[in-house]
Amino acid sequence: MTTTLQNDVFLRALLRQPTERTPVWMMRQAGRYLPEYRATRGRAGSFMGLCTNPDYACEVTLQPLDRYPLDAAILFSDILTIPHAMNLGLEFEAGEGPKIERPVRTSADIDRLFVPDPAKELKYVIDAVSLIRRELKGRVPLIGFAGSPWTVSTYIVEGGSTKNFARIKSMLYGAPSDMHRVLDVVTRSTISYLNAQIEAGAQAAMVFDTWGGVLTPQAYREFSLHYMQRIVDGLVKEREGRRVPVILFTKGGGAWLDQMAGTGADALGVDWTTDLADARAMTGDRVALQGNLDPSVLYAPPAAIRTEVGRVLASYGKGHGHVFNLGHGIHPDVDPEHAGAMVAAVHELSPQYHR
Amino acid sequence: MTTTLQNDVFLRALLRQPTERTPVWMMRQAGRYLPEYRATRGRAGSFMGLCTNPDYACEVTLQPLDRYPLDAAILFSDILTIPHAMNLGLEFEAGEGPKIERPVRTSADIDRLFVPDPAKELKYVIDAVSLIRRELKGRVPLIGFAGSPWTVSTYIVEGGSTKNFARIKSMLYGAPSDMHRVLDVVTRSTISYLNAQIEAGAQAAMVFDTWGGVLTPQAYREFSLHYMQRIVDGLVKEREGRRVPVILFTKGGGAWLDQMAGTGADALGVDWTTDLADARAMTGDRVALQGNLDPSVLYAPPAAIRTEVGRVLASYGKGHGHVFNLGHGIHPDVDPEHAGAMVAAVHELSPQYHR
Repeated sequence: MTTTLQNDVFLRALLRQPTERTPVWMMRQAGRYLPEYRATRGRAGSFMGLCTNPDYACEVTLQPLDRYPLDAAILFSDILTIPHAMNLGLEFEAGEGPKIERPVRTSADIDRLFVPDPAKELKYVIDAVSLIRRELKGRVPLIGFAGSPWTVSTYIVEGGSTKNFARIKSMLYGAPSDMHRVLDVVTRSTISYLNAQIEAGAQAAMVFDTWGGVLTPQAYREFSLHYMQRIVDGLVKEREGRRVPVILFTKGGGAWLDQMAGTGADALGVDWTTDLADARAMTGDRVALQGNLDPSVLYAPPAAIRTEVGRVLASYGKGHGHVFNLGHGIHPDVDPEHAGAMVAAVHELSPQYHR
Repeated sequence: MTTTLQNDVFLRALLRQPTERTPVWMMRQAGRYLPEYRATRGRAGSFMGLCTNPDYACEVTLQPLDRYPLDAAILFSDILTIPHAMNLGLEFEAGEGPKIERPVRTSADIDRLFVPDPAKELKYVIDAVSLIRRELKGRVPLIGFAGSPWTVSTYIVEGGSTKNFARIKSMLYGAPSDMHRVLDVVTRSTISYLNAQIEAGAQAAMVFDTWGGVLTPQAYREFSLHYMQRIVDGLVKEREGRRVPVILFTKGGGAWLDQMAGTGADALGVDWTTDLADARAMTGDRVALQGNLDPSVLYAPPAAIRTEVGRVLASYGKGHGHVFNLGHGIHPDVDPEHAGAMVAAVHELSPQYHR
C-alpha cells in the first residue's frame, strides 16, 4: 500500500496542480475492444464471473496499461454491484444488457432494500481493489467508482436498461417520496461502498451518472445532483497522506456543470457535446475537467483522431487541471490501434499547453 | 384552400402575436398510443402502406383532432420519405425500426444521390397535404415537416437506426467533404420537398433534428445547423396572405438555442432538459418556443401531469410566443386519457399567462 507512486500526473491534474503534460485514461479502458479482455472474459465464462473474481478483475484492469501509456488504472467492475449485493437478482444476458430479476416498484419492495456490507456482500470488489493496488506496484494510481444513485436506481426500478424510463419516471412524478426512499438507501450504500474501496487502496473515486441527462433541470437537482452531493460530503477525503479526489460525471449534463462544481467535487467529467472552453468558463477555477473526445472519433483513421485530440486539447487551452479522456465509454467495436493513436496524440500534443 | 381558418392561435403564437391562451399540439399526436391509429394501420398493412396512401395518411392525421382540443394538425408522414424517394430502399421491419437497403458510404454511392421531384417520387405526400387541408375545413392549421439533413443522413449512411453513429461519424471525421456532399443533396431535396408541402397547403413547417444532439458543438454548427440555415433561407415565406412560420427542433440542442435563433427561424422546439425560462433568456425576443413537457410525465397519474404542465407554463411565464408541446414524441405505450389530461391542463392553466 505504501509503494511510492511513480506517476502521479493524473492525481495532480485532478487537483489542478502543475503537470508537464495532460494525463490520459479511457472510460471502459478494460473492455470488449481488446482481444486480451475477450480472452479473459471467455475463461471467466460470463461478465459477472469476471466481476466477482478478484484475480480476473485484476487481470483485465491491468491489460490496457500494458498496451498503452495510460496515467491511471480504473477498477474493473460494474455500476450494478450494489443492486446485486441487495439481492435483487442481477443477470447479464448476452446482447440484452443487464436484467434485475426482482425490480423495486412498490412501497413493500422499497422496504426490503438495505445497505450492503462492503466486507460481506461486496467483498469481491474490495478484494479486487486490494489485489490491483498490490499488482500495480505504484505504476499509476487506481480509480475506484460507483454509479450515481439516480443511475443505479433506474436499473433497480426498471429491471434493466430502458429507453423511456417509464416506471422510474412514473415513480418520480407520481410518487416522489417513494423515489426519494429508493435514492436514499442507494446513496447510503454507495458512500459505504466507495469508502471501502478507498480504504482498500483506491486513490480517486468517480461517480458515473450515465442517466442524469434524461431528467428535467429541476428533477436533476432533486433526484440526481442532491444525492451526488451527499456522496461528495460522505467520502473519506484523505488516505496515505494524499487527498482522494472525487470526479462526478453526468452524461448530457453540460448545462449543469456550474451546479455540479458547487458540490465540492474535485473534478467533473464532460461529454463531447460541450466544448471544454465553455465548461471551463462555466466552472471557473473550482474544478478540474475530464474529457471529452467523441468516442466515435475512434472510428475514423488515425490522422483524423490526432486532429480531433488536438482540438480537445486546444479547447481546454493553456493551464493545468485537464485530464484527457473520451466523452463516454469506448465503443466495443473500435480498433485498439485507434485507441493507441489517441493516447499517443495526447502525449505528443499536450506538453505545449503546460509550459 | 381559401377556407377561413377558425383557430389560428397556433400560428399567432409562432409569430409571438397576442393570444388568449397557450396553443397545444403533440409531437407524434397521430401514433401508436391511439387505438384508432392502430386500427387504420392494421388496414393499411404496414407503416409505409399508411404513409404512401393519402387517404390513410389523412385519416390518421385527423384522428387526434377528433379526440382532443388541439390547435394544430401535423401531416402524418415520416422523415425517411426523402431517402425512400432517392430509391435507397426503405423498409420498416417490425420491432426493428427503419432499414435502408442501399446505404450510402462510398463516393460512388454519393454520386448516385439525386434531388427527388416532389411531384413525382413524393407525390403521395403532396397529395396527402392537399387532402388533409381540404378535410380539415379550416378547423386548425396544418404543419408540414421534414427531418433535418443531418438526421436524415444518419439513416442514409448507417442504413438504419444506430446507437454509436459509427459509419457516419467515420465519414464526418475522416472524409468531411464526402459528408458535405451527402448533406448538400439532402438539403436541396428538403427545400424542394417542404416548399411543395407549403404550395399544397401546409401553413407552417417544422424541421426535426432528432440526432443533432449527438454532435460536438463544432460539428453541430458545421454539419447540422448550417444545413438547417439553408432550409430556413430557401423556404417560401408567405402563402394565402399569411407568413408560413418555420420551427427548428434539435433534440439535445439546449445549449445551441441562441445559434439556432440566429438562423431566422420563427420558432424553436425545446426538449425537456432545458428550462423554458432559460431558453427564453438565451433567445431573447427573436423566436417563439415550443415544448417542453418530459414525454414520460404521461406515464404518471393525471394529477401529476397537471402539476408538471403547470410547471412548464410557469417556466415560460407571462407573455405570448409559447406553443405547448411534449419535449419529444409521445411514447407508444402512453394511456390516451393521460394525453387528454395534458391537453386539458394547458387549456385550463394557460390563460393566466396571457392577461
